[in-house]
Amino acid sequence: MLEELKKKVWEANLLLPEYHLVTFTWGNVSAIDRESGLFVIKPSGVDYQKLKPEDMVVVNLKGEKVEGRYNPSSDTPTHTVLYNRFPEIGGIVHTHSTWATSWAQAGRGIPCYGTTHADYFYGDIPCVRNLTKEEIEEAYETNTGVLIADDFEENHRDPAAVPGVLCKNHGVFTWGKDAKEAVHNAVVVEEVAKMAALCECINPKVQPAPQALQDKHYFRKHGAGAYYGQKEE
Amino acid sequence: MLEELKKKVWEANLLLPEYHLVTFTWGNVSAIDRESGLFVIKPSGVDYQKLKPEDMVVVNLKGEKVEGRYNPSSDTPTHTVLYNRFPEIGGIVHTHSTWATSWAQAGRGIPCYGTTHADYFYGDIPCVRNLTKEEIEEAYETNTGVLIADDFEENHRDPAAVPGVLCKNHGVFTWGKDAKEAVHNAVVVEEVAKMAALCECINPKVQPAPQALQDKHYFRKHGAGAYYGQKEE
Amino acid sequence: MLEELKKKVWEANLLLPEYHLVTFTWGNVSAIDRESGLFVIKPSGVDYQKLKPEDMVVVNLKGEKVEGRYNPSSDTPTHTVLYNRFPEIGGIVHTHSTWATSWAQAGRGIPCYGTTHADYFYGDIPCVRNLTKEEIEEAYETNTGVLIADDFEENHRDPAAVPGVLCKNHGVFTWGKDAKEAVHNAVVVEEVAKMAALCECINPKVQPAPQALQDKHYFRKHGAGAYYGQKEE
Amino acid sequence: MLEELKKKVWEANLLLPEYHLVTFTWGNVSAIDRESGLFVIKPSGVDYQKLKPEDMVVVNLKGEKVEGRYNPSSDTPTHTVLYNRFPEIGGIVHTHSTWATSWAQAGRGIPCYGTTHADYFYGDIPCVRNLTKEEIEEAYETNTGVLIADDFEENHRDPAAVPGVLCKNHGVFTWGKDAKEAVHNAVVVEEVAKMAALCECINPKVQPAPQALQDKHYFRKHGAGAYYGQKEE
Repeated sequence: MLEELKKKVWEANLLLPEYHLVTFTWGNVSAIDRESGLFVIKPSGVDYQKLKPEDMVVVNLKGEKVEGRYNPSSDTPTHTVLYNRFPEIGGIVHTHSTWATSWAQAGRGIPCYGTTHADYFYGDIPCVRNLTKEEIEEAYETNTGVLIADDFEENHRDPAAVPGVLCKNHGVFTWGKDAKEAVHNAVVVEEVAKMAALCECINPKVQPAPQALQDKHYFRKHGAGAYYGQKEE
Repeated sequence: MLEELKKKVWEANLLLPEYHLVTFTWGNVSAIDRESGLFVIKPSGVDYQKLKPEDMVVVNLKGEKVEGRYNPSSDTPTHTVLYNRFPEIGGIVHTHSTWATSWAQAGRGIPCYGTTHADYFYGDIPCVRNLTKEEIEEAYETNTGVLIADDFEENHRDPAAVPGVLCKNHGVFTWGKDAKEAVHNAVVVEEVAKMAALCECINPKVQPAPQALQDKHYFRKHGAGAYYGQKEE
Repeated sequence: MLEELKKKVWEANLLLPEYHLVTFTWGNVSAIDRESGLFVIKPSGVDYQKLKPEDMVVVNLKGEKVEGRYNPSSDTPTHTVLYNRFPEIGGIVHTHSTWATSWAQAGRGIPCYGTTHADYFYGDIPCVRNLTKEEIEEAYETNTGVLIADDFEENHRDPAAVPGVLCKNHGVFTWGKDAKEAVHNAVVVEEVAKMAALCECINPKVQPAPQALQDKHYFRKHGAGAYYGQKEE
Repeated sequence: MLEELKKKVWEANLLLPEYHLVTFTWGNVSAIDRESGLFVIKPSGVDYQKLKPEDMVVVNLKGEKVEGRYNPSSDTPTHTVLYNRFPEIGGIVHTHSTWATSWAQAGRGIPCYGTTHADYFYGDIPCVRNLTKEEIEEAYETNTGVLIADDFEENHRDPAAVPGVLCKNHGVFTWGKDAKEAVHNAVVVEEVAKMAALCECINPKVQPAPQALQDKHYFRKHGAGAYYGQKEE
């Protein structure tokens, strides 16, 4: 069942330690097959070096396990909500990567200080608030997804133009058209988080990059006028 | 004598440089066989790359060497006290890992700023005071153990829920149900120490994570209501 | 066409990830054959691990592609201007390396705090201003080159003695007599940027190194009185 | 000539990039044969990966080259002075290692904030002043050695108990009983420099470790009462 997708999700999970985004089992990747409405996700608490493609767990859009000998990631309900609320995304990554999580712990979104950021994220990388005690006790993981999706809706953020978010005192979620792009965006968030923190040390009064520069870089890589890279055939 | 345990302690010692927790010989791991009341510990000042399982030293709960051609770690009396005072622990690690030791040198315990911390430590990672001149001169390594155990007793800290401590101007001790879990906790302390320092740079007014979030993460991994990972068979 | 030069440019491009100067495709190297007035540059957005020497693109000094199946780097117009305006240079590197880019994002040039810097750069590593909205919209990449060259001209900087520059909110350009030396200078800028930021943390009132020390180190490696290294035969 | 010593000095030089203490050729190691009064040092500006044992240069205690096809390190006069003034040392290392050089650029000695430092250095790691313009122009490298030796003499520092020094706006010199121990001390200085900078960030009011703790750690590893490690046979 979804053997091809399982392999891709497995590979994408292995990229997390390769890019130094996770310690031990502190992260997970999933990807969805929109046709069947099923997504594939890493099992909970299994070491990356022991993972095999067939260990991946298949889950439906109600968050129910459909296939697999393991329990799916404990963050599965968050993934479920995001796939339901963001119909254009195909893969999701969760990490506790060091610098991005430090921003999350600090409770701050990451301002756009340069073109490295603007090449991938249009505007700030937002940081959503803590869940209340009631929201945590009711359904922690589900409500994390609801909080993210509501924040994007209320603030008119386009999940395609802002492919990631920080959760206060917790960590990072990123997404993309597939598992690999979601991992790519997780690498970007970590690198951008590091440079933003360093540049605030170097100049405590630093201001975000001018809007014209942000626009230039974002739109030379995205949308109809893009001219970065090679035409895909 | 205790060949199986020696091999595990040897492997756990080799994990210290692998996880970048030690430079040269600045660390040690031990593990205890509760039935015989004997523990196995790294010899003092021997290079990690030259260590063999049979080089491990066997010590009893009075701190006396029972077997081994080498002197045990100079920190053996600290391990001895901790095994006596914390009967539930099975392995102990000592390191001078960079970020955690920087907190120790700063004389501060590490506040719980996020879920990475709360997944493993319930509340702050404490930092115990300096020993007095008299305590140092009387029995430095033994009194380090006594200071840690007294601190946990006086402050009603459960060594199972707070599996590690900083020693002011010195370094880190962590523990666990066995040598491997103790090393795992040493990795956690180092990563949490780094993120706590960075997040204080990013937001000097940062506050600890809400108690409800700390509770949620700690108890989804520990105790009767845990649901993280796979059921052990 | 220019097969030898293509190989050197390809090798120099591979040095960028080896020296940890780039993530993904965030960088490029070019080198010029002054006799023919043609330069060779990395294609745009192609993974470093997939690059082959024959993928390099040949461009003339008007910035027009002369040979190659790929589009040249989107930064090609910047390289074109620099080769035209700095006739003594033979290779150019662009990166978003972490510490140097953090200075660029902070909008500050890097003061000369020590001999590591003075061994390679005579005086500050400058940071040029943002382009205006009009300059960005008219010809972003070309005007980046014009801005750099004008800044060097107006401030009487010698591109041979100051072989690199930061672009505000963007990244780094370095150059040298060939591609390899340009990469070498990119490594220097990154290391110097890191040490300058750290030394300002350690001593917020730090002053630049004395001029006599800067002169000594620069001139023991450069010019007629140099005595560092081996005489080239 | 001194083939055995050349091999040891060559090996010690290769340890510098292995321990991440140097970039390119920014460092050098030497060791002396006290019987003949000759020392062996790395050639100037030769890549570490191309070095061979027979490339090492032999120099006498007047600083004159006695054997070798290459020029010796441009820092040879500094080594010469130190071997003359510190008769108990057998090896010398010079690096621009990142964190230690940042302290040197900041113009500050490294306070003893913990036992990692006290295990190797008794008291601060000092930072000597800049040479004057006249001293630089007269004999830069020789006067660097004179400045270090004079500082140790005037401040009654024992080179055996303080096996290293920072040179303001420049870098680090360390030494030891042989080349390997000098490299070992260079690793210690870099790690201690990093932890001291981090701990000042974590607690800007941090104080040096209590003298009793410094004494305990230094003397459990050095001198008649030492009990760390194994008895050498």
